[in-house]
Amino acid sequence: MESVRDTVVRMARQARDASRNVAGLSTGVKNDVLLRTAELLRERSEEIRAENEKDLAAGRERGLAAAMLDRLELSDRVLDSMIQGLREIAALPDPVGEVDDMVRRPSGILVGRMRVPLGVVAMIYESRPNVTIDAAALCLKAGNAVFLRGGSEAVHSNVVLGAILREALESCGADPDAVQVVPVTDREAVNVLLEQEEYIDLVIPRGGEGLIRFVSEHSRIPVLKHYKGVCHAFVDTGADHDMAARIVMNGKVQRPGVCNALETLLVHEDEAGSFLPRIAGELMDAGVEIRGCERTCAIVGGAKRAVEDDWPAEFLDLIIAVRVVKDIDEAMEHIARYGSRHTEVIITPHYGNAQRFLREVDASAVMVNASSRFSDGGQFGLGAEIGISTTKLHAYGPMGLKELTARKFIVYGAGEIRE
Amino acid sequence: MESVRDTVVRMARQARDASRNVAGLSTGVKNDVLLRTAELLRERSEEIRAENEKDLAAGRERGLAAAMLDRLELSDRVLDSMIQGLREIAALPDPVGEVDDMVRRPSGILVGRMRVPLGVVAMIYESRPNVTIDAAALCLKAGNAVFLRGGSEAVHSNVVLGAILREALESCGADPDAVQVVPVTDREAVNVLLEQEEYIDLVIPRGGEGLIRFVSEHSRIPVLKHYKGVCHAFVDTGADHDMAARIVMNGKVQRPGVCNALETLLVHEDEAGSFLPRIAGELMDAGVEIRGCERTCAIVGGAKRAVEDDWPAEFLDLIIAVRVVKDIDEAMEHIARYGSRHTEVIITPHYGNAQRFLREVDASAVMVNASSRFSDGGQFGLGAEIGISTTKLHAYGPMGLKELTARKFIVYGAGEIRE
Repeated sequence: MESVRDTVVRMARQARDASRNVAGLSTGVKNDVLLRTAELLRERSEEIRAENEKDLAAGRERGLAAAMLDRLELSDRVLDSMIQGLREIAALPDPVGEVDDMVRRPSGILVGRMRVPLGVVAMIYESRPNVTIDAAALCLKAGNAVFLRGGSEAVHSNVVLGAILREALESCGADPDAVQVVPVTDREAVNVLLEQEEYIDLVIPRGGEGLIRFVSEHSRIPVLKHYKGVCHAFVDTGADHDMAARIVMNGKVQRPGVCNALETLLVHEDEAGSFLPRIAGELMDAGVEIRGCERTCAIVGGAKRAVEDDWPAEFLDLIIAVRVVKDIDEAMEHIARYGSRHTEVIITPHYGNAQRFLREVDASAVMVNASSRFSDGGQFGLGAEIGISTTKLHAYGPMGLKELTARKFIVYGAGEIRE
Repeated sequence: MESVRDTVVRMARQARDASRNVAGLSTGVKNDVLLRTAELLRERSEEIRAENEKDLAAGRERGLAAAMLDRLELSDRVLDSMIQGLREIAALPDPVGEVDDMVRRPSGILVGRMRVPLGVVAMIYESRPNVTIDAAALCLKAGNAVFLRGGSEAVHSNVVLGAILREALESCGADPDAVQVVPVTDREAVNVLLEQEEYIDLVIPRGGEGLIRFVSEHSRIPVLKHYKGVCHAFVDTGADHDMAARIVMNGKVQRPGVCNALETLLVHEDEAGSFLPRIAGELMDAGVEIRGCERTCAIVGGAKRAVEDDWPAEFLDLIIAVRVVKDIDEAMEHIARYGSRHTEVIITPHYGNAQRFLREVDASAVMVNASSRFSDGGQFGLGAEIGISTTKLHAYGPMGLKELTARKFIVYGAGEIRE
C-alpha cells in the first residue's frame, strides 16, 4: 500500500501538473465546471448524504459535541447553500487575464500587468465539509489547481465532494487532477503537505488558532492566515450615543462567534458617565457579560472586573471587555498593544480624529462610524471570500478571487532595445 | 560582551519599535531624511573612504579577486551614484496613504483601500556597500524600518553608511532606530535574523544563488527573491530578421552579467536556415560562444554541441544556448521546462502567437518584440527597484516602492450596521 507520504507527494505533483491546464481554461469552461458541480450535488445528494452519515456515525461514536456534529452535517439546507455558492462564484467576473496599469514608457514599449493564477493552492481546514466545495470553486475560478485537506472527522464527506468536483472537471474537458482531496486521516499528511513547496504555491489554513499556528510554524510554503479577531470599537468624545449603541450592539450581539464580532469597547472619559450606563443596560439585556476596567466598574453596576487576559481575548461569545480611555491616543495605544490587526472601529463626529484613526491604526480593516461586522469579502464587494489575512504580505484583510492571483508584467514592443 | 544572538535580537526589536515612528512620518520629512543623507555622504566622504579602505585592505589581504574588490570600492563614481539615487528616490511619489478602489456598497458604507508600510524589512546582501544606501532609502520612503545585513567583507563600509543614515534620521526629528546595520561579520547573525518573525515582516536577499537558497530554506519570515534569470528569446516563423537580431544582440551582449540578459535563443525551424547563420556571425563577432542543439550545429559552423546542463543554465557571460524548435508550442514547452520565471521574449509578426505567448508563458515579465533587458523597475516605470521576485506571492517581477507596502481596507460609514 502507498504510504501517507507517497500519497500526499503524488497528489501534490498531480495538482502541479494539472495547474497548467486549469490556468489555461476559458472563463466559460470554468463556469461550466462550477455549474456542473452544482447539478451533480443535486443529482448525487443521496450518495453525499450516505457518505456524510458515515462521518456523523463515527462522530457520534467518538462522542463529538452536538455543535461539532451540527457543523459536520450536510443537511439539505447546507447542500442548497453550497449550490447557491457555486452559482454565485460562476457569476463573478474572472480575474484571470485582466490587464491594467498599461503605460507607454519613454523607450517606446507599452508595459502593463496581467492577472495570472497562482498555481496550486492548498487549503487545510476543520470540520465543515462545505469548505471543500466553496474553496475549490474559488480556486478553480481563479485558474488554480487546489489541494484540499479537511478535518479527519469529515473525510468521507470530503472525498465524495472531491469526486464530484473531479467528475465535473472531466465532463467539461478539463483535467480532473486540478482537484485533489487527501483521503487519509493521518496527521502526518499535513506535515508532508507543508513540505511540498516545489508543487504548492500557497497554503490557507482555516480553523482554530491551534491549527493555524501549527501550519504557519511548520510550513515551507507561504501561508495566508489570521489567528484571531480581537476587534475594538472606540466611542470618541462627542459621539452620537444612538449611533454608538447601534454599532456596539451589532458588533457584539448579532453573531458573537465570528472573527469580525466586537470584543472590546473603548469609551472616551467625556462620554463614559452617560454612555456606559446606557450601553451596559442594552448589553446586559441581551445577555452580554461585561468585564470592565476600574473606572467602568465604578460606573456600571454588575460589571465584572477585567483581568489582564481579557484585553487580548477573542471571546467569540456574549462577553465584552470595556475600558475608559483619556483620549484617542490612549485608545490607539490600547489597540496597538492588544489588537490582532483584524478590524478596528471609531465612532466619532470629529473629522480630524476620523482621519487620524483611519491612517494611524494598523489593522486590515479600519472603520469610521460603521459596524465591525462589515469586515467581510461579500460586504466589501470582493464577491465570495476565501479567508482573511491579518499579515501584510500578498493580502491584508478579506481575500477574494483577486487575492488568488498574481500580476505579471506584459510588454508590447515594436523592436525596441535598451540603449 | 553582548552575544551575536543578543545583538541581532536587540536590533530587530529596536527596528520594530521604530517602525511605528517611520510609518507616521510625512512625505516631506522622509524626503528630508533622504536629501540630508545625500549631503552627509558628500560631507563625510573622507571618513567613508577611510572605512572603505579598511575593507579593501582586508580583502586584498584575503586575496579577493579584482572583480570583487572593484564591487567593494566606494569610489567617487559610486558615491555620486548613491547621492543621485537618494535624490531620485526623494523625487518619487510617496505610496503611503494612497487610497484607491473606493466604492459605495449597497449597505451604504464607502469602502476603499489605503497603502500602508509593511513594517520592518530586512535586506541580506553581498559585497556592494552601495546597497546599504539604496535599500535603506527605498524602505524608508515606503515608511518601513530597515534591518541591513551586508557582506562581512564590507562591514566597515556598511557600518559607517548606516551611521550616516541614522544621523540623517535624527537630524530630521525621526527615530534613528529605523535603520539597523548589523555590525558583526559572524554568519550566525543571518541565522538569528531569519528567526525574528516577531519583529521582521519581510526578508529580501540579494546576491548569488547560494545565499538566496540559504535564506529561503532557513527563514521563518516571508522571503521575496529570485534565484536566477534564465531568459529566452523565441524567433517565430515570419519574424523580421533585423528586429530579431537587434533584440538578441541587445539581450546577450549589452550587459551579459545581469539577470535580465538573454541565455537561450529558440528559433522556429522555418527561420533557422536563414536566421541562424546571420545571428551566429554577429554573436561570434561579439565574442559570444554558441552552444547549439543538433540542428543548430548542423547549420552553424563553430557552434559547440549543447549538453543538457546548458538549457537551464544562467551563464551570466558571453555564452548562449541555441535550439531549433518546430513551432510556438515547442518553444513554450521548452520555456516551461527550463525557464526561471524571470523574463521571456517572442519575436513575431503574428497577432495570435503574440497574444498566446503573453497569456500562456508563466514568467514575471513576458514580452513581444522587445529586449529582455527592459525587465527592470526603472524601465517599467516603477522608479527605483528593490529587487525582482520570481515567485508569485505579494510581488511578481521588478519591485518598486509599492511592493514595499500593503493595502488595508478603510471604511467611511454614517452609522451603518449589518442586518
